[in-house]
Amino acid sequence: MEDETKTWPSKAWTHLTSTRNNSPLIQCITNFVSMDLMANTLLAAGASPAMLHSLQEIPDFTPNTHALCINIGTLTAEWLPAMKMAAEVAVKAGKPWVLDPVAAGASKFRLEACVELVKMKPCVIRGNGSEILAIFKGSVGSTKGVDSTHDSTDAIEAAKSLAEANGCIVAVSGAVDIVTDGKRVVGARNGVAMLQKITATGCSVTALIAAFVAVDPVHAFEATATALSVFGVAAEMAMDLAKGPASLRMHLIDSLYGLDHSTVLSRVHITSL
Amino acid sequence: MEDETKTWPSKAWTHLTSTRNNSPLIQCITNFVSMDLMANTLLAAGASPAMLHSLQEIPDFTPNTHALCINIGTLTAEWLPAMKMAAEVAVKAGKPWVLDPVAAGASKFRLEACVELVKMKPCVIRGNGSEILAIFKGSVGSTKGVDSTHDSTDAIEAAKSLAEANGCIVAVSGAVDIVTDGKRVVGARNGVAMLQKITATGCSVTALIAAFVAVDPVHAFEATATALSVFGVAAEMAMDLAKGPASLRMHLIDSLYGLDHSTVLSRVHITSL
Amino acid sequence: MEDETKTWPSKAWTHLTSTRNNSPLIQCITNFVSMDLMANTLLAAGASPAMLHSLQEIPDFTPNTHALCINIGTLTAEWLPAMKMAAEVAVKAGKPWVLDPVAAGASKFRLEACVELVKMKPCVIRGNGSEILAIFKGSVGSTKGVDSTHDSTDAIEAAKSLAEANGCIVAVSGAVDIVTDGKRVVGARNGVAMLQKITATGCSVTALIAAFVAVDPVHAFEATATALSVFGVAAEMAMDLAKGPASLRMHLIDSLYGLDHSTVLSRVHITSL
Repeated sequence: MEDETKTWPSKAWTHLTSTRNNSPLIQCITNFVSMDLMANTLLAAGASPAMLHSLQEIPDFTPNTHALCINIGTLTAEWLPAMKMAAEVAVKAGKPWVLDPVAAGASKFRLEACVELVKMKPCVIRGNGSEILAIFKGSVGSTKGVDSTHDSTDAIEAAKSLAEANGCIVAVSGAVDIVTDGKRVVGARNGVAMLQKITATGCSVTALIAAFVAVDPVHAFEATATALSVFGVAAEMAMDLAKGPASLRMHLIDSLYGLDHSTVLSRVHITSL
Repeated sequence: MEDETKTWPSKAWTHLTSTRNNSPLIQCITNFVSMDLMANTLLAAGASPAMLHSLQEIPDFTPNTHALCINIGTLTAEWLPAMKMAAEVAVKAGKPWVLDPVAAGASKFRLEACVELVKMKPCVIRGNGSEILAIFKGSVGSTKGVDSTHDSTDAIEAAKSLAEANGCIVAVSGAVDIVTDGKRVVGARNGVAMLQKITATGCSVTALIAAFVAVDPVHAFEATATALSVFGVAAEMAMDLAKGPASLRMHLIDSLYGLDHSTVLSRVHITSL
Repeated sequence: MEDETKTWPSKAWTHLTSTRNNSPLIQCITNFVSMDLMANTLLAAGASPAMLHSLQEIPDFTPNTHALCINIGTLTAEWLPAMKMAAEVAVKAGKPWVLDPVAAGASKFRLEACVELVKMKPCVIRGNGSEILAIFKGSVGSTKGVDSTHDSTDAIEAAKSLAEANGCIVAVSGAVDIVTDGKRVVGARNGVAMLQKITATGCSVTALIAAFVAVDPVHAFEATATALSVFGVAAEMAMDLAKGPASLRMHLIDSLYGLDHSTVLSRVHITSL
């Protein structure tokens, strides 16, 4: 255990370096609120974002990407078919895809969409405690809008069950970010509370997970945990300079872009739970 | 009059504190340009934004919100039914809703949409002088895109008539922000001119009005005036640090997040007209 | 040649000043990712942006604008008819329009849309090397998402042919930005490499071209080159203050807003090729 904790920082550095060197092409079908920050997060990490969601283009485009990120934030009946088609095309092409089930429990329509998408073989699902619990329980009303009313640790058992049942990684964001493959459980212990005061930071870290999984698809569990920690470390560095949520957001992207070896090695903190 | 002017700053502080303490859930059906800044404005003020606009979700979701903000900036025929449905559901559920009639006079289609929405019992309408005049006169062509060609004071009589006819509050943004319930008229005298050089600041202050109305629905007149002034005070604090519109935008959100009691008490300037 | 190089900076200053003084109304039908930065770029330069794309409004609105910017970044079958209608209405009304063929070669659907739009008499087409080559060759697959895999100089001959065949200006962004009317070719030699790490900077400079063309439509070749250089100069000034892509983005807009005569005269660097 002790030894494993020591190896996480170097894994994180490997994933970040590999993203910078390989510049994976990440297709994002995401909500309108998050597009700007998500694209800038991917660029700052060295990846190449492509916000492309039309049914006409997915068959041509999705097979050429390195990973796909689907986020249901501003879901409508018109967008859902593109999400499903992209997930299907990605799986057929052997490309990993990551699901962000924003506000999963906010409506029956949204919950059903989540349940359908979860069955389409995502490589990783990342949500907050309330979202993961809503999908696990299949119940509407347990979330208050997009913000969680549960700690991530409330959702560990739900996350493990979801991961095991769907053969995927499940990550639960919170004061400690939980990552599980159904058997192993680790806690990524980086980040700052003020991130919750910036819209789309959760969406953006999901995209970073997609980038890390793209460069190391056979280690999706590790890539998920390191993406959460690397984003959290960038936030910690940024917090030293921030005077509020908007300057934190700016410094976060700058920090992610500039993260160096010694900072990642000394700051990344992931432990078994 | 003098005494009333003195009570406004403490009302403003009460509304801001109440927003921070209660974190009202504000549903926003808004234009694509403003989503990011609007969500971050609400978060910085302590509210919980939810950008959710699908017809399938409104019946489930809207009754659980504390207020609704409808902004027609990037209006299309596809979005209008969701706006109308949300307004109807909100009114039935007893939740206040706020209308931002962006560029009301830019086209016949847009003006007709505004007129229909105005009839659906909004609690507050906030626009610039050109927008309020366009709705009042029912005439296309009096606005140049989204920017006003009229001072807010040009629209006082139009605002009073609109407010009286529709039983709502009407706010007109400008060098002085005008607020009226049809009888009372006050001027919120905070803010800086450079706000006009940042897109979506008008949209965002409308969302802040929704948050303040959510926490004090029986005093919508006061909540509207204090929201305009609080946003303006945050802009004034930000202007001291800004070197242009983009840094002003960043400092604005930071300032709104950090606004303290003494600043609000000393800076909020609302007077009867 | 030498003399011509010397006249470019004063042309650039004339276009910027004219934009500030006349505040041209620029209609933007653009992708969701770029709306915020594009609107703020136009505002910082003194123009008046209007993000308006509904079929119902274009006949009323587009004839009253001073220029139109069409960007296909998040293209769908639903948005394409509005782009075509707006281009047609603009041409009929004698208003210049500018095309940004984002990721032109990413799919058959997208490439065909580009080819159709190119035939609709744009005044200017601005893309990166891969995009211009994709349109010229009519071939899918030569772009990797939205990022170029070609230098701008790889596309000079393609740009000249496209410009000549369509009677328009073609600009190719890169380390040196190429501008041609089919006969003349100049290189705009301003800007910084880190711009590529900020989403929507390419989209935004296309909108700035639309603004400069709006105020000097009979000199579209010159307006295109000066817009590229002015944006590049703002980026150079910003780079002195930036600590990464997000602070660069903020300082870029601040710098564009504040650009003064002596900076433009000393920094703008455009040469014949």
